[in-house]
Amino acid sequence: MIKDLNGALSVGVKGMKRSAIRELLKLVSRPEIISFAGGLPSPDSFPRQELKQIMMDIMDDEKESSIALQYGATEGDILLREQLVSRYRQQGLDITTENLIITTASQQALDLVAKIFINRGDTILVGLPSYLGGLSAFNSYGAKIDGIPLDEDGMSAELLEKKLEELKQQNVKPKFIYVIPDFQNPAGITMSESRREEIIALGHKYDVLILEDSPYRELRFIGEHQKTMYELDGTGHVILLGTFSKLFVPGFRIGWVIAHPEIVDKFVVAKQATDLCTPPFNQRIAARYLEKGLLDVNIKKIIQMYSVKQRTMLDLFEQHMPEGVSWTKPEGGLFLMVTLPKHINTNDMLVKAIQEENVAFVAGQSFFCDGSGTNTMRINFSYASNEKNIEGIHRLVNIIKKEI
Amino acid sequence: MIKDLNGALSVGVKGMKRSAIRELLKLVSRPEIISFAGGLPSPDSFPRQELKQIMMDIMDDEKESSIALQYGATEGDILLREQLVSRYRQQGLDITTENLIITTASQQALDLVAKIFINRGDTILVGLPSYLGGLSAFNSYGAKIDGIPLDEDGMSAELLEKKLEELKQQNVKPKFIYVIPDFQNPAGITMSESRREEIIALGHKYDVLILEDSPYRELRFIGEHQKTMYELDGTGHVILLGTFSKLFVPGFRIGWVIAHPEIVDKFVVAKQATDLCTPPFNQRIAARYLEKGLLDVNIKKIIQMYSVKQRTMLDLFEQHMPEGVSWTKPEGGLFLMVTLPKHINTNDMLVKAIQEENVAFVAGQSFFCDGSGTNTMRINFSYASNEKNIEGIHRLVNIIKKEI
Repeated sequence: MIKDLNGALSVGVKGMKRSAIRELLKLVSRPEIISFAGGLPSPDSFPRQELKQIMMDIMDDEKESSIALQYGATEGDILLREQLVSRYRQQGLDITTENLIITTASQQALDLVAKIFINRGDTILVGLPSYLGGLSAFNSYGAKIDGIPLDEDGMSAELLEKKLEELKQQNVKPKFIYVIPDFQNPAGITMSESRREEIIALGHKYDVLILEDSPYRELRFIGEHQKTMYELDGTGHVILLGTFSKLFVPGFRIGWVIAHPEIVDKFVVAKQATDLCTPPFNQRIAARYLEKGLLDVNIKKIIQMYSVKQRTMLDLFEQHMPEGVSWTKPEGGLFLMVTLPKHINTNDMLVKAIQEENVAFVAGQSFFCDGSGTNTMRINFSYASNEKNIEGIHRLVNIIKKEI
Repeated sequence: MIKDLNGALSVGVKGMKRSAIRELLKLVSRPEIISFAGGLPSPDSFPRQELKQIMMDIMDDEKESSIALQYGATEGDILLREQLVSRYRQQGLDITTENLIITTASQQALDLVAKIFINRGDTILVGLPSYLGGLSAFNSYGAKIDGIPLDEDGMSAELLEKKLEELKQQNVKPKFIYVIPDFQNPAGITMSESRREEIIALGHKYDVLILEDSPYRELRFIGEHQKTMYELDGTGHVILLGTFSKLFVPGFRIGWVIAHPEIVDKFVVAKQATDLCTPPFNQRIAARYLEKGLLDVNIKKIIQMYSVKQRTMLDLFEQHMPEGVSWTKPEGGLFLMVTLPKHINTNDMLVKAIQEENVAFVAGQSFFCDGSGTNTMRINFSYASNEKNIEGIHRLVNIIKKEI
């Protein structure tokens, strides 16, 4: 072993710690714990029998299996790209396969976007709070991350403009603005159409790309679907990230990027050096699954399942939460955010929650790039059964009451 | 779209081009071309029926499929890690699961090693020639790459020491020495045990890590197996990379890193930000495949298949190559390297080979970080059928004769 391992590390990795969420995921496996910490879909949402049939069909076909088991194109399986493009076109997006590259789930897309654009010290703008996996990816390339608070319509356009103007005075042009417009992780907030338009206009005015992370958009329980910012913009100023992880199965690790062809080309170059290609086997199964129209069937099932779980949880909050506690009421997705009185630190409370009440959540601070949010927590409602969720919320209420 | 996309790119990506090999892979699909360009295993080596059975067993088991289709640990599937550790222990390596992390094939391990250690401008040392995918990964983090020529025993220890001493005088400590000791890509050369010992000793003397990339080691046709440098060292000064891509199926994208636990820990942190986890589904299939002892059966089949193809090719070279042409005679692996007279540029010859003779190879220059090797080419003997290989070599000889 070399004498000074830490001294030999890159600046990006030197500052990184094991992700709080990933470490907490390990708790899920202890049977006595009810965990609201992960971002896992319910195993009941996995279409096991349909997938098994597709796998058998692929493996029985010599040509199909030779493609699925071999190396594939960096851009992704052409059948899967065509299926996704056709699905987005039906939703109103004006794209072709030139606009789309498959990634090893969304996390790789976040890593690649950082690899493509970030030199150490470059500024990017994110929501306060924002998805931890995004922050980690950007941090690993040495980005300087500035946070813009959210209001009930999503990232504040007013505060974004103020920040952009301030940076312009300092001659700093951020590389991109990172937003999660639908059922935001962790806050559960959805951006209104007018807010989307405002953010896009600011992107144009200050010549800054917008990175739209959209893993939950199709999981809407109530209210009207919002157009993607990619569609609203229509000029290639937005990079849109999608994934199957919440709609289908996370275990396949399939996501995608939709962007201007010149930007897609940079993703291809960066991905070649990163993992050559996303598993062609998994891509071909997903392509056949889409082709059969099964994804929409599964999404309907998931919406039904999660909306019941969320409704139950919100009702329990309403009935049992002590005064001074507030929470978001997302119209879809997997998460909601709870805010406690200022004096409560959820990092400390989490330790007690696990030890005294066998219940876990994610302390909110890690989602806030400025270290604020110490009195918040993220609650997942998709993973556990409704029964476990009910028992877990009672435990959570107990520990909150003790703390208050 | 932003006004100056190229201006917004990171320094690492600005210098990258689409990989010559990946672009050439597209030629494989044109039926009239016989391509020696890719690094693809033969589709005849894929254990279709065995894999199908394992998939069905997993999908029929509720618990097993719930693990396989869900998110998994960043370190990898514990069953797969245990299987791999037990296999390496049988081969003589003193490791536990703490020494091993699963990656999204070897290319991700190369990316992660670069992410962990390379700040822009850091020096690393590689063979002349060396695997292009390694060079791309290191380049994408802005590494300064210095090449050390190979002789018939692998990387020259004498020239390596000279370079290390020269760098030391300049107060430069390279981050690592990148070697492919067995059936090296592209040259096909295997490092002798004494050379391995010399390189390891230099790694210790100059306090520089050694990165041992080992995708082909088990595919030995003749001669004695060499110990891995990881085993010979035994102190954790070597990082060993392995992959299933050449032994089993590339379409699953499964590789692994074996290293000192402190280094494995850095890989975990870096991988969390990169793709969270390698597809748990593919890992579980691979774990069950190993558990059944099927990998060793498949490796025997592959060795038999490729050694015949290589023998045929070497015999044809012997009989038909014009004077002034030489080639390596690898004891295993997938590639050999041909060297033409100095005045022939294989980049130019490749265009004519495709246009006039419908045959393709990789021009060697891209494997040489110093831009030399313009009279070399890499020939793959694993992918095409023996009949195609015979026809292809005749075409290749034709174009070489025309050029000479």
